[in-house]
Order: sequence, then C-alpha cells, then structure tokens
Amino acid sequence: MSLTVQDIGEQGLLKRVQAFCPSAIVGDDAAVLPTEFGKSIVVTSDVLVDSVHFSDRTTPPESAGWRAIAANLSDLAAMGASPLGITVGLGLPKTTPVDWVERLYQGMSDCLAQYGGAIVGGDICRSPVITLAITAFGQVDPNRVIARSTAQPGDAIFVTGYHGSSRAGLEMLLNNDTTSERASLIRAHQYPIPRFDIPPISTRVSGMDSSDGLADAIVQICRMSGVGANVDRASIPIDPALEQWVSNQQAIDWALYGGEDFELVLCLPIEQAQHWIKQVKGSAIVGEITADPIVQLIDSSGEFEPRSLTLDQGFQHFSNH
Amino acid sequence: MSLTVQDIGEQGLLKRVQAFCPSAIVGDDAAVLPTEFGKSIVVTSDVLVDSVHFSDRTTPPESAGWRAIAANLSDLAAMGASPLGITVGLGLPKTTPVDWVERLYQGMSDCLAQYGGAIVGGDICRSPVITLAITAFGQVDPNRVIARSTAQPGDAIFVTGYHGSSRAGLEMLLNNDTTSERASLIRAHQYPIPRFDIPPISTRVSGMDSSDGLADAIVQICRMSGVGANVDRASIPIDPALEQWVSNQQAIDWALYGGEDFELVLCLPIEQAQHWIKQVKGSAIVGEITADPIVQLIDSSGEFEPRSLTLDQGFQHFSNH
Repeated sequence: MSLTVQDIGEQGLLKRVQAFCPSAIVGDDAAVLPTEFGKSIVVTSDVLVDSVHFSDRTTPPESAGWRAIAANLSDLAAMGASPLGITVGLGLPKTTPVDWVERLYQGMSDCLAQYGGAIVGGDICRSPVITLAITAFGQVDPNRVIARSTAQPGDAIFVTGYHGSSRAGLEMLLNNDTTSERASLIRAHQYPIPRFDIPPISTRVSGMDSSDGLADAIVQICRMSGVGANVDRASIPIDPALEQWVSNQQAIDWALYGGEDFELVLCLPIEQAQHWIKQVKGSAIVGEITADPIVQLIDSSGEFEPRSLTLDQGFQHFSNH
Repeated sequence: MSLTVQDIGEQGLLKRVQAFCPSAIVGDDAAVLPTEFGKSIVVTSDVLVDSVHFSDRTTPPESAGWRAIAANLSDLAAMGASPLGITVGLGLPKTTPVDWVERLYQGMSDCLAQYGGAIVGGDICRSPVITLAITAFGQVDPNRVIARSTAQPGDAIFVTGYHGSSRAGLEMLLNNDTTSERASLIRAHQYPIPRFDIPPISTRVSGMDSSDGLADAIVQICRMSGVGANVDRASIPIDPALEQWVSNQQAIDWALYGGEDFELVLCLPIEQAQHWIKQVKGSAIVGEITADPIVQLIDSSGEFEPRSLTLDQGFQHFSNH
C-alpha cells in the first residue's frame, strides 16, 4: 500500500508540497509580490476535476499538473502578459496517494520553471473528488494588452502552431495507441506549451488562445470585434504525423473543435503577420478578418465547399446532449 | 422542480453569473487590473467543498458566498493590504438549482460591495460535488506589510474583536437553536466581517487573522517570530450573549480553537496598542509577547492554573482522529 494523505495529515502534506514553492513566500496569510512600474496585473483561473478534465488513464499526475499550469499561462500569453505567479487550490480524497500529489506538483513546477512564475500560495482541503483550482497572475504594459475585441477587417489571422494535435493525442491515449511515429501527438496532449515566444508587440494585435479549439477562438474574436472572417482550411497547420494518420476531414475537425492546443490566434496587419511567420517556427496565416460579420471556412485547394463556422459544435460543460 | 444548471447549460449559467461582475472585465482570456504606483500585489486563495466547509443546513447559499469572500478578504486585511479583486472557480453537479448559484453570487457580491474588490474572473465546470475556489488579490505598500514573523518581546497582543462567536453560532445552527438573545452568534457564523478598519500603520505591526482560532494565530506568530507569549484568558473578548449561554470553560475553548472569527491578531508596541483600543470598537489587548518561546494561557482573574497552548488541539483536515 502506498502512503496516503490521510497517513501523513494536512501538515505533513503541506510540508511536502511547500518544497515546490519559493521559501520566502511560504508561511503568511497571503503572498506579496512586487510588480514593475506602470504595469497592470492580469488574472485568470481554472477549475479542473478528476474524471472531467483529467484522468490517470490519459494523463499521469505530472501531466495533469503541467497541463493545468500551461492552460493558465496560455491565458496570460493570450493577453500579452508575462507570468508573476500562481496559486494552487487542491481538494483531495483522504485515500489519495502522497506520491500522486507530489508528482502533480512536480509537473506544475516543471512547467513554471520553463515558462516563468512560481507557486506563491494555495490551499489543500478534503474533498470527495480530486479538484485542482489554479489562478495565474501576470503583468502587462496596459498599452500592449492583446484583447479579443479589436480585430479589424483586413487583418491577417495568425496562429502560432499546429492545431488538432492535442485531441489526436487524447484519441491515441484512449485507445492505448503508442505508435512511435505519432508520439508528438501524445506529447502535445500531455505537455502543451504556452506560447510566450511571439515577437514584441509594436502594433495593434488582438486575439486569444485556442484552448477551446480554433473555431471557437476565431468566432469569439469576430463576435467581440463585430467583424467576420474567411478561414482557409488548407492553411491550418496540422502536424504531419496527424495528416498521415487520419482523413483530412477528421484532422480539420479536431483542429477546429478539438481544443487544448493552447496556441495563440492573433489578428494583426498582414505585413506584420508575414514578418512574424519568419520569426515563429511552425506559425501560419490561416485567414483574413472581413467586415461582413460571418465566419466562413473556405478551401483554397478547391476541394471543399465553403461553410459557416459557429460555436454550436463546441463543448458545453452542463448540456444534456 | 426548480431550474437546474443542466437546464440552462454552461453558457446560460455564465450569462447569469456575469451579472455579478463588472461588465468591462468580462469576456477576455484574463482580467487586467491597474495597480497603484509602488504597491506590491498580495494574493491568497481557498478551496471550499460542500459538506466539508459549508452546508445548506447551517449556511444558506448567500452565507456560503459571503463567508468564502470574507475569509479571503480577511487574509488580505491580515497582510495590511486593500482588496483589488477576486476570481471564483466553481465546480457544480448538473442538478444544482440555478437559484442556488445566483444566491451564492449574491452573497459574494454583497460582501465585496461592502468591503471592496469585485469578481474579475473565474471558471465554472462540472463536478460531482459543489466546490468553490476563491483567489483574492489586493495591493499593499511593501513597507506596510503585516507579517507573521516580526513580533518582538514586549509587544502587546491586540485582537480586533470577539472570539468564539462563530463556533457558538455553528452549534446553535446544528441544534436548530434560534434563541433571539443570541442571534449575534449566528450572524457571526454566517456573515463574518473582514477587519479592514484598523488604524493606518505607522510602526511595525506583525500578526495574522484568527481564521483557525485564536490559539493557532498566537502560536503561529510566535513560531515564525521565534518568541513566546503570555495570553490572559480573562482578557479575551467574548460576546456577552455567548458568556451568558455556556460555561466560561466552553466559551474560552471555542475562542481558542473554534476558528472562523476572522478577527485580526496583531503584535505591536504597547503604547500603540493602547491607542488602537480606543479607535477599534470591541478590540482588546489579550496578552504580551515574551522572549521565552513558550505560549502560555494565564488567568489574571486567578481562577485557572496557567497551561501551555499548542496546535495539537487544532484541526487537521486529513487526520484520522
């Protein structure tokens, strides 16, 4: 039998997880963090529940931790912010192995070590189901905020990388498919990368991340900006490993609706976007913002008929259907 | 049958709870908030689980919401910070009545309206158990931080108000005791007040809030500061309604170990403390910091023998006993 949280108690568990936090921060009612002159703070949060958002079947605890952090850092990246820190709220059944908790924190720490920020606070409590509540905060120059609502007709729609990989990786994991030629898809699902590597912003850039799929991101940006878009399915970057595995229809479907790729979807003047393409490896221009407030999926290769993109296909957490 | 979250879906529920958030904040990947020049940010978080931390039996949803906010604002107050905003992560079973969720947000909003801050972000997801994850952040002059680790021998131990009331109110609620003469105790349990009303800090002040009981607060401060304390049981402020209801032994026990009174426990030079007593209604000096690192409960009335205070009596969320 492995050691459980009930065996070592709350204080014992706290001591172990504090090993993952900067020592200067631990031990007061709240964490104090300096911000740079003139910066605004940026805050985002997520709640993740065992068997709803993660599962030992597809994500070992290191991956569950990494993904939780990456998702929140991605929201900071999507605002143009740089990370300051995160808080971790954790609800645990008494029978949770201590090792599981430490591996979760290891995954969170690894992601923070690579992309910035530290665990600066949190709370651990008893719960009938493992629940992970992450709040990430960062700082941003208020004149450099990437908002969803400022896209303009004529803007290029720039994406930082492959779409559909995370959903494809999930499919492999659910089917115990360990084919090494497409291991990149499993990696994309288990260890997504928040995109802090876009060039410094000198002009207006609007956008968001593709956490709920590429279609959702583009439709949301268009709604908030009162514009439309033509999205070219032939231009959506797809991992070759995915292209070789499934039909183009399936790959595009996962790219549009799969979600959790955590790439940035940015609208900016075309000349700027063409410049960025050279600087961000794997990035692409997938379409154009239009004045007509309709989001259309077109096909520059001529194979598929145009169709309109909506959010109806998207995921609704509480819906019956 | 009342309307449930499953009836209106995630988007429907989000629309309703967004009514409780400032409209300028809603609708991007993260919230952006300006901070004042030279201030540091302060962050704290809590996870609360249905039937562990709250229950319809003792706290209607308005009270559960108020308490969650008050507890986090109290942590900010205990750092000397003023509130900027909070994020709300909410896990909900599909069958949760929409009305329950709206009343929860109403309680949170009421507390924020009174003590500062706004709901600036959050996440709602499906969960087998109602789970509420709050992160509060504020700002503080880095030279005016109230830390736990800076108490000095000779400091007075100042508390902002009654202790034991919240635990007593819980006892009444569990026993369906609605005696109007002690309604203040129920109120203290259901609608605690974060103490932002201490005078401006001009000298060194150390301390924390009494969320885990007065004994816990004093022992923690002493441990972190490498000092001890003499605490006078006869000086601990107890609501007269509580004094008249139970034995002195029971009242002191609840004051020391009941928790959730959310008063501030502050260590500061005696002259300053005596000055503050006049400015903070209901406050009291309950003891003195000593060089000898032992925390003793003494009795200036002479009735009880001195005994040492430890954390062993405190609550450990995961322990078996």
